[in-house]
Amino acid sequence: MINSSHAKNNPALFVFLPVLYTVWSDAVLTPTEIKSLEAVIEKQTWLDKEEREFLRSLINPANPPKPSELKNWLSEILKVSTTPEDSLADIGVKLAALHSSGKANISEQALHSLAGIEQSLGLIGREATYTFHPEYRRSITQKQATQHTFDVSTLTKILDGDQAALISKVKTILSDPEFAYIETDNLGEYRAKVLHWAKLLAKQGLGALAYPKEYGGISSMAEYFTVMETLSYHDLSLVVKFGVQFGLWGMSVYFLGTAKHHKKYLKDIGTLELPGCFAMTETGHGSNVRGVETTATYNHHNKTFTIHTPNEAAQKEYIGNAALHGHMATVFAKLIVDGKDYGVNAFVVPLRDKQGNLLPGITIKDCGRKLGLNGVDNGVIRFTNVVIPKDEMLDRFAWVNEEGRFESPITSDNRRFFTMLGTLVGGRIGIPRSGNAASKAGLTIAIRYGDKRTQFGPEGAAEVPILNYRTHQRRLMPLLANAYALHFALQYLTKRFVERTEEEMQEIEALAAGLKAWATWNTTATLQECREACGGKGYLFENRIGSLKNDTDIYTTFEGDNTVLMQLVAKSRLTEFKQEFSSMNAFGLLNYLASQAATSITEMNPIIIRNTDEEHLLDPEFHLNAFRYRERDILISVAKRLKRHIDDGMDSFDAFNVCQHHLIQVGFDYVERMIMEQFFEAVKTVTDEKCRFVLRKLYNLYAISQLEKNKGWYLEQGYMEGVKTKAIRKLFNQLCWDIRKDAVPLVDAFNIPANCLAAPIAVQ
Amino acid sequence: MINSSHAKNNPALFVFLPVLYTVWSDAVLTPTEIKSLEAVIEKQTWLDKEEREFLRSLINPANPPKPSELKNWLSEILKVSTTPEDSLADIGVKLAALHSSGKANISEQALHSLAGIEQSLGLIGREATYTFHPEYRRSITQKQATQHTFDVSTLTKILDGDQAALISKVKTILSDPEFAYIETDNLGEYRAKVLHWAKLLAKQGLGALAYPKEYGGISSMAEYFTVMETLSYHDLSLVVKFGVQFGLWGMSVYFLGTAKHHKKYLKDIGTLELPGCFAMTETGHGSNVRGVETTATYNHHNKTFTIHTPNEAAQKEYIGNAALHGHMATVFAKLIVDGKDYGVNAFVVPLRDKQGNLLPGITIKDCGRKLGLNGVDNGVIRFTNVVIPKDEMLDRFAWVNEEGRFESPITSDNRRFFTMLGTLVGGRIGIPRSGNAASKAGLTIAIRYGDKRTQFGPEGAAEVPILNYRTHQRRLMPLLANAYALHFALQYLTKRFVERTEEEMQEIEALAAGLKAWATWNTTATLQECREACGGKGYLFENRIGSLKNDTDIYTTFEGDNTVLMQLVAKSRLTEFKQEFSSMNAFGLLNYLASQAATSITEMNPIIIRNTDEEHLLDPEFHLNAFRYRERDILISVAKRLKRHIDDGMDSFDAFNVCQHHLIQVGFDYVERMIMEQFFEAVKTVTDEKCRFVLRKLYNLYAISQLEKNKGWYLEQGYMEGVKTKAIRKLFNQLCWDIRKDAVPLVDAFNIPANCLAAPIAVQ
Repeated sequence: MINSSHAKNNPALFVFLPVLYTVWSDAVLTPTEIKSLEAVIEKQTWLDKEEREFLRSLINPANPPKPSELKNWLSEILKVSTTPEDSLADIGVKLAALHSSGKANISEQALHSLAGIEQSLGLIGREATYTFHPEYRRSITQKQATQHTFDVSTLTKILDGDQAALISKVKTILSDPEFAYIETDNLGEYRAKVLHWAKLLAKQGLGALAYPKEYGGISSMAEYFTVMETLSYHDLSLVVKFGVQFGLWGMSVYFLGTAKHHKKYLKDIGTLELPGCFAMTETGHGSNVRGVETTATYNHHNKTFTIHTPNEAAQKEYIGNAALHGHMATVFAKLIVDGKDYGVNAFVVPLRDKQGNLLPGITIKDCGRKLGLNGVDNGVIRFTNVVIPKDEMLDRFAWVNEEGRFESPITSDNRRFFTMLGTLVGGRIGIPRSGNAASKAGLTIAIRYGDKRTQFGPEGAAEVPILNYRTHQRRLMPLLANAYALHFALQYLTKRFVERTEEEMQEIEALAAGLKAWATWNTTATLQECREACGGKGYLFENRIGSLKNDTDIYTTFEGDNTVLMQLVAKSRLTEFKQEFSSMNAFGLLNYLASQAATSITEMNPIIIRNTDEEHLLDPEFHLNAFRYRERDILISVAKRLKRHIDDGMDSFDAFNVCQHHLIQVGFDYVERMIMEQFFEAVKTVTDEKCRFVLRKLYNLYAISQLEKNKGWYLEQGYMEGVKTKAIRKLFNQLCWDIRKDAVPLVDAFNIPANCLAAPIAVQ
Repeated sequence: MINSSHAKNNPALFVFLPVLYTVWSDAVLTPTEIKSLEAVIEKQTWLDKEEREFLRSLINPANPPKPSELKNWLSEILKVSTTPEDSLADIGVKLAALHSSGKANISEQALHSLAGIEQSLGLIGREATYTFHPEYRRSITQKQATQHTFDVSTLTKILDGDQAALISKVKTILSDPEFAYIETDNLGEYRAKVLHWAKLLAKQGLGALAYPKEYGGISSMAEYFTVMETLSYHDLSLVVKFGVQFGLWGMSVYFLGTAKHHKKYLKDIGTLELPGCFAMTETGHGSNVRGVETTATYNHHNKTFTIHTPNEAAQKEYIGNAALHGHMATVFAKLIVDGKDYGVNAFVVPLRDKQGNLLPGITIKDCGRKLGLNGVDNGVIRFTNVVIPKDEMLDRFAWVNEEGRFESPITSDNRRFFTMLGTLVGGRIGIPRSGNAASKAGLTIAIRYGDKRTQFGPEGAAEVPILNYRTHQRRLMPLLANAYALHFALQYLTKRFVERTEEEMQEIEALAAGLKAWATWNTTATLQECREACGGKGYLFENRIGSLKNDTDIYTTFEGDNTVLMQLVAKSRLTEFKQEFSSMNAFGLLNYLASQAATSITEMNPIIIRNTDEEHLLDPEFHLNAFRYRERDILISVAKRLKRHIDDGMDSFDAFNVCQHHLIQVGFDYVERMIMEQFFEAVKTVTDEKCRFVLRKLYNLYAISQLEKNKGWYLEQGYMEGVKTKAIRKLFNQLCWDIRKDAVPLVDAFNIPANCLAAPIAVQ
């Protein structure tokens, strides 16, 4: 165009240049676009036929302008385009004026046609001209950025609570150069390093905290959990090694044994002088651990037990500390006295001598490489008629008396075993706390990266931080809210556990089981999302998300398979119906159930089920009602279903199986309501106004994201109408957008040491 | 009781023994239970006061029976209990008779009271007596087992189709001892092994299949994909190494270069004589690859290009084959001619000499250990003014002419670049096919294990295969259906791609992008579920699920980040609205949209939205209507939202961001409808009746699981009512239960070689 004789003769032709440029620089020139343009050209009666012909030639797809020509057009346009307010037609007029030394005569018709062209080509409003002035573009998406509305260290103090000093101590220890991560995948080296780290922790007195003073501790489970959690910012193999030694091994001796065992072992366990194992799980029995087949046969003639593995399925499998380092083990075995089976009991069995050589009758196979936790030496143990003295039975709940008879204050074998297991419920507190710490680390890495990493943006303008994208926010912000929610819920669980009475045990066991399952699934989901949110960077070993993910992956399995645990929660919730099941006829039960569901009626009025006011949607009372309604309704409906099936003659085992998916939902609903309540209670007590405000925002996001997740159920029940769930969805997105601005300070408040995070994308 | 003087005097007391045993052997004796029992005892006026006192003493929690006594009770009971039909009272009567030599006089009152007790203690019907005869218990859950209703090898033939011979060949090669997995985590060894394997495949002619005959191939992309997919049953590092060398490197030369490049390079690429890289992604530009900053500056004086990395963010990152083995690379760089930027073009750049030494100007950093794919040597490449001859520009779509001027048949830089990328869309077919093969391997392992692994069962009875549990079925069966559904959908995509015309490219690109995203997310979800479903066994390296999971984890990121791809799909779907956006006023648009949604009206009649007949719910026409309705409605609603925002003056970049989550849903709905259609079409063509029947069941499960997943949306829209979604949920569980019986033969039909699966839990 620029050097054509046509344009030289009639500079008014330049009026078309911006449209032509825009059309050709766009990715595709569609037949429709060509048709629109041709029609416009045809209408320009102020141009002669040849000129129109010439313009038509410029939109011929068979003869496109050369790339270099296109660039010349652009240079030409930039000469006159100085403001993004200009339309393409405006620029065209200016160009024509420039080329005619201001004398071009542009007809009204031409201008009008061009305005029409812009629209019919789908060039949105004035945005087409941003192509020439991207620097003027000011979208909201570009502008969003991290804000600082609260004091990060104040929030850290709120999170740490009365454990701040210990947390700080653990972090200081972890910051020692001795704790630098090693990048080796030589199992031997890695395991040796982890053992070395565990010894350093023991030397600092951190291993024995839960034990009584005379064995080096301060009798505090709370502090033990704090250490587990804080260590979880570092290598998780260390956490599990620590948990196996001081938790599983040490606490089985402490809680299942008596004074003689404490005196003999606890001190050396706490210092890691005596590394040991917790040998419960067998190849054949993991979840259904009551069925373990290892036997401990009492021999009265010499007052010993013979520990024996009767078959391959009865081997102790996945046992931490077994492959290399363990010298002894708490072994769970069926006790046989006088040919009678007294169910599963626990015994201390030596595995290796001081030099680390396996003792006679002990066979150990290395479990080898695992998906994660490769710093822990898991092994498979087989016992071949290993004889141990009678005193090595952990005899808090049962023993063999001097006459060689079995005695126990607990008559039922099952009840005795579950009482023993109940004393070990701490594992179901330590693990979710460790998992949530790993989630916090992953979120810190992904959110800091998302705040800095830019990608895409308005055409020609600067790229935008990926955390400004709504999808990225939807992926990470609810998980950030979950991490905070779980933090407070797990603190509540810990408090309940530490201050428990005997009567509360059933409730606390259900609470621990449910939170363990929910939290560890949340960890897996969080770290997966963090990995993907960091793209290729998230895949590199150096950025740690992969290790966090792999190491915590087994958290959903060990200390109780999550699916099994959720059923356990449901069964515990159902016991309140046990009486009603049996003592009422169907009519009585229905009346009872109806009375249980009574409060819901008031919530179901047509105004509330359609209420879309933000104030209402963010009202904690609405949340509480909605969560409780779901929890209660699902519990009642599964109870009804079970009763109906059983009344119809179905085997109860089948009835529970038919309702299994439903039962697991009972577990979820219970846990989610509980987390919400505890999060809200915790926020209420915060005195710093700014921190309380941001925590309240996180609480809102947690509550709304749960309602959104369960909207299908609420709609199905008629508890909400479509207008309301749509409003919730919209609010959900909005809350994610809002909290994004606080996201970086919110992860900073986790206060994870840079050397623990280590990921270059998060700390450089 | 047994040896008490009371019982000796009045053997009728034995009538209580079975109840007493049951109460004490149960896990918990609650205060309510004690109260019930006491009340019953009080009512037994046929007993004297002392006898009642004695019975009461037997339920005193402060003085429980000894464990050994409880066992004696049981032995006693087993003497008379011979049939599970007996109630506890029946057994009691028999016991009393035994101890009185048949002369016990049991009052009616006693029998009636006992019957009452059973109920009030919540001992469900006659199930309490199963405690004594677990072997008689026959629950449906125990009985469920694998059935063989179709011929596995026939189904394998259907899956393999016309590629059966090649699949068989690849499997035979993989079964060679040379391909035995190595359990090393020494990166060097592992990478060398993978290179060695890739060379073996090349030697078999598998690397060059896609290339023309003169370069060792048969010009068949279909066969190339088949090899990628089949190799994916084996080590996935090998698959990616294979894909990098023969796909990315080879095909970039083939599709972006011209005859001179083909002649010079293709043969050696196909034989792996010339290992190479595909250097597109930069540290700073992954998804937004159009923004890469590496420059290729043309120097006309000596007809060369200078390849240069201007800053750290412009380094080529994650480049496969770069850290060790690659000798050359296809490098994407902004072409600068005469100071003008002509957008991103591709160049062949040598990296190493024949001996493997880096050439001057080339700096390569090893990416080091990754979450997975550690057999691939990814690296970071930096170019410092590396000069290459003009001929090394891959010049199919653009070139510098003899006069030193840039030339291209494609005017727009963007369009040219996206045209280049379009030729490489094959990667978005190979990767989901590889991912789905990994899913199949994971499912084979988890389903075979679930069929054999038993855990829990009715009290005292044999344990039950975990795959008989409803939750386990709900976790795995829908994923099995997905794997089959994707198998056929990906075959359809492959066919469309292989037979494509120019006009279809946009559609096929959208199809490939969407399927790649959906399939690889499904792979991640599937392998995670498989890992958890195998518990601790799933965590062991030897069982392979961990490796499959880690290796495929990056599939959701490379060949296009899934979230970005789903937006690309949505934008492609939206182009049909582009015209309407601009040429209609709001009223016109609404009319148009309404007409698009017209067919839906007929589906919304009150009978259909409440129809819960199984026949209706399994009717493919219902599925198709429901899927299409969702797809169309969501597409239209996002189009409306975008238009409304833009009309309101919102920057279009913001408008797209505000709707981003909605847009991604457009992508999902499109893909899910397409998968359903293609699965159904494929099933229809199966001639073997039994195979067609089981495939139809899988199809049903796929369709119903998608409807269940999206029930919130359908309810919100009023497309379904609660009764219908509840029926769908019930049907979903039922379909899982049904297909479980076919699950093992269904994974057997994938016909994955045992040496590839390798997992002891699946092949021993």
